[in-house]
Amino acid sequence: MEYPSKVLSKAVEEISGLPGIGKKSALRLALHLLKQHESQALALSQALKELVTQIKYCKECHNFSDYEVCELCASERRDSSQLCVVEDVRDVMAIENTGKFKGKYLVLGGKISPMEGVGPGQLNVGALEAKINSGGINELIFALSATMEGDTTAYYLYKKLKGHSVRFSTIARGISVGDELEYADEISLGRSIQNRVPYKETD
Amino acid sequence: MEYPSKVLSKAVEEISGLPGIGKKSALRLALHLLKQHESQALALSQALKELVTQIKYCKECHNFSDYEVCELCASERRDSSQLCVVEDVRDVMAIENTGKFKGKYLVLGGKISPMEGVGPGQLNVGALEAKINSGGINELIFALSATMEGDTTAYYLYKKLKGHSVRFSTIARGISVGDELEYADEISLGRSIQNRVPYKETD
Repeated sequence: MEYPSKVLSKAVEEISGLPGIGKKSALRLALHLLKQHESQALALSQALKELVTQIKYCKECHNFSDYEVCELCASERRDSSQLCVVEDVRDVMAIENTGKFKGKYLVLGGKISPMEGVGPGQLNVGALEAKINSGGINELIFALSATMEGDTTAYYLYKKLKGHSVRFSTIARGISVGDELEYADEISLGRSIQNRVPYKETD
Repeated sequence: MEYPSKVLSKAVEEISGLPGIGKKSALRLALHLLKQHESQALALSQALKELVTQIKYCKECHNFSDYEVCELCASERRDSSQLCVVEDVRDVMAIENTGKFKGKYLVLGGKISPMEGVGPGQLNVGALEAKINSGGINELIFALSATMEGDTTAYYLYKKLKGHSVRFSTIARGISVGDELEYADEISLGRSIQNRVPYKETD
């Protein structure tokens, strides 16, 4: 496709560099921006610039933060003896939304994925080790994706850190709420029967 | 959802202002940009800014252009007596890709759509009228969407311009190449039998 304008062509090229957005969608988005008031595109442009130039990371948990130490890490009301290892900010937000965890987090920044060229070196493994070495942590909770990459990452971290006097745990896997057994995959169903828990009247 | 960082939250908000992109996709895109080299996001930011501040329109056809008069309008080899009325730049590109039209274009910049609050006033109707008034045009071809809005727009333009000595035509509607009759919708099939054309050995 040949575009009649260089600025349009450049914008389409850059937008289509985003994951999941092809040339046609990129052109549709560019035309949308041209139809709106100029200020919308300028605000988007500015927000993207500020995103990559001004983003800061909490020096404790390595999550994004506006402060040197994020609110979760600074909070006195959270249990510093439980450290939950997650992949990225979305996982922190998802777990926080449940309201069921009152410990602290460590954001790895990804998972080990040889297919995508991500090794332990690109993750915040050193920070995790330093945190455990500094003491005070009783339980390390792996809250990683239930995928090959997530499992590999948990296994790698376990092997690396098992010499320390911490209890290792991982979030439970099993049948999701609302699932019907006949449609559950056999690995999840198998694990959920192996790792069955005492019945409680309410949960 | 509460984001741990204002710049992240601002970026997600602006990205999710684009059509078809929700908060979750916007966050995914923002995280993608943060994982890439800073230069990618800065290039995108710059391209969006330039898009809305530097885009120019051809004064003849109102398509986007890098010059005052676009290449299609400036070309001596194209037939100025045929004027094809289209909705936007994508339609010009689509028709140019077929290689079957050698006339000139006029880009309306949209179609009449009361649902979206677009009336004739927002379209380049004045420019179309001026072009016809200036003479030299024998045929006005409506190449608009085969939708209610496209039909309304064509009808509006026809009513407005029918006093001029131009021939009005509209692109053929019928069965697409590759379609099987039994699966064609009845309106398209009905029109295609009504507007049947002489059989030719090759097309």
